[in-house]
Amino acid sequence: MGGDFAPGNIVAGAVEALRAADNRFEVLLVGPEATIRGALNGASGNDSHLRIIPATQVIDMHDAATAAVREKKDSSIAIGVGLQTAGNADAFVSAGHTGAVMAASTLILGRIEGIGRPTIGAFFPSVNGVCLLVDAGGNVDCKPSHLYEFGVMGSIYASAMFGFTNPTVGLLSVGEEDTKGPEAVREAYKLLKASSVNFIGNVEGRDILKGKAHVVVCDGYVGNVLLKFGESVPGFFKHAIKESLSQSVVAKMLGGLMRGTLRKAMKSMDYEEYGGVPVLGVNGVSIIGHGSSTPKAIKNMILKAEEMVHKNINGRIKQALAGTR
Amino acid sequence: MGGDFAPGNIVAGAVEALRAADNRFEVLLVGPEATIRGALNGASGNDSHLRIIPATQVIDMHDAATAAVREKKDSSIAIGVGLQTAGNADAFVSAGHTGAVMAASTLILGRIEGIGRPTIGAFFPSVNGVCLLVDAGGNVDCKPSHLYEFGVMGSIYASAMFGFTNPTVGLLSVGEEDTKGPEAVREAYKLLKASSVNFIGNVEGRDILKGKAHVVVCDGYVGNVLLKFGESVPGFFKHAIKESLSQSVVAKMLGGLMRGTLRKAMKSMDYEEYGGVPVLGVNGVSIIGHGSSTPKAIKNMILKAEEMVHKNINGRIKQALAGTR
Repeated sequence: MGGDFAPGNIVAGAVEALRAADNRFEVLLVGPEATIRGALNGASGNDSHLRIIPATQVIDMHDAATAAVREKKDSSIAIGVGLQTAGNADAFVSAGHTGAVMAASTLILGRIEGIGRPTIGAFFPSVNGVCLLVDAGGNVDCKPSHLYEFGVMGSIYASAMFGFTNPTVGLLSVGEEDTKGPEAVREAYKLLKASSVNFIGNVEGRDILKGKAHVVVCDGYVGNVLLKFGESVPGFFKHAIKESLSQSVVAKMLGGLMRGTLRKAMKSMDYEEYGGVPVLGVNGVSIIGHGSSTPKAIKNMILKAEEMVHKNINGRIKQALAGTR
Repeated sequence: MGGDFAPGNIVAGAVEALRAADNRFEVLLVGPEATIRGALNGASGNDSHLRIIPATQVIDMHDAATAAVREKKDSSIAIGVGLQTAGNADAFVSAGHTGAVMAASTLILGRIEGIGRPTIGAFFPSVNGVCLLVDAGGNVDCKPSHLYEFGVMGSIYASAMFGFTNPTVGLLSVGEEDTKGPEAVREAYKLLKASSVNFIGNVEGRDILKGKAHVVVCDGYVGNVLLKFGESVPGFFKHAIKESLSQSVVAKMLGGLMRGTLRKAMKSMDYEEYGGVPVLGVNGVSIIGHGSSTPKAIKNMILKAEEMVHKNINGRIKQALAGTR
């Protein structure tokens, strides 16, 4: 029931995912039964691998995240995440309220032992193809140990899901030297330096797109601000291009070409391609998509969730934490 | 003696500034006399309004900022900033060590009464033409009162120097609601709300380029990261455009056109146009330019410094602090 186009896009995406995966898994659709049944009829999928799990409540965008999860126990998010604790599902994906999915994942699935703060990552474009930024908004006030954990989890995700061998991990600061940056960053530097991740030291704002590190660690305040700033860049250039080109037919064609190139350059920031961002550090798999997710985005979220289960991301995180501290 | 092309570009810029201003002020060139004399001979300016102030030491990019200012008392930065305390100059501009200019300005000129932390602003492009971001790197760990001060000083600068009437001030956070963001940001929200600045509440990363506020307040960690990220965007697009276009002559022409348009769109981030960023909150005028400043950038820095003196930015800051707290 999450996102701007639910349940239509969600159900259509589930049908597409099953088709792409040759029905090798089941998709459980969580929400008000009649509403979902209606959307399913519209999607005309082979529904032998689709099941409806009833949930009478919906957490909407205006609800306060943690309170909504606690109070709306029969919401599609709470019921959907809870399927994993009951052993009835291996992963959860949603295009709904980001904070509520994060809160439900933490409260219902619980944190992995040794993890103080689960995190949401974000994908940035880079000359390497993609850069994983952790944290991207879940945790605005971070202790050094939280930043360290983000580095460990990010490294494992980038290795398993992006195929980077021994991915480089950088700590976002205002200069290269270990004396630079806020106190929490300077302390986290020492923890990452002493850990088994491939820590390359501090990186700066300019190093993200340059691909200096596969994984960039920061608190959720700077991460969220950067993510939203980055998402606004193509729109700003679109405006600037429009202002600077005359309105001749040739100029319009050029403008279209430039916009297409920019969009392509920024595609790593496109939820549709990457299928949403993972909640890392909880006892289960949870992926959060954009509110305006298309069926293609939902399909990719489901396929990424399956991949995270198969690649045993959580088992690797547990192993890494046991090994390094 | 500051920057990558000193003293050549500095002296050439001073000559250009005097020419543009019809010799209505004097420029004092601070540094080793013989070296500057040599550069002056090369610049062939009418030197009736140019004077050399000898300084035997130079603070270089590898020096630790505060220690260098304390130890190199005969450096061009320390001597140059000090001219104001002795009443021998009205303003100081430098393309040298940013941290050292900041430290010298704070230590030698002293803080304006009521200001806990002087700040360096940065200019971002926006649909309004320009957005002033304070702080952009001077202060990585900020208390709520520091963020409040940045808002007051930024508002005065944007009004006086950019001509925005009653400029809007936004506080950078992760959501619009006053409950969003790190603790220091939530507390600063209350201080700004109660102040006389035109505070529009929290803004997000996406709102900077969109021009939602004329002035955006944040700590120097997120500010510095954003500034450097923004500066890296055109270079990344240049790379992406190169990757995506074939190497035909037409494609190369298109690529050139696209790069030109992008550069134009980002011109507010160009130190050459804006003539460096101001240190706000000290008892004097101090402007810091890019290390690679051209003569044109130096010229604009000198003209902006004169404008800051004439517009009495510091008097306005004192008045605002007296009025609102």
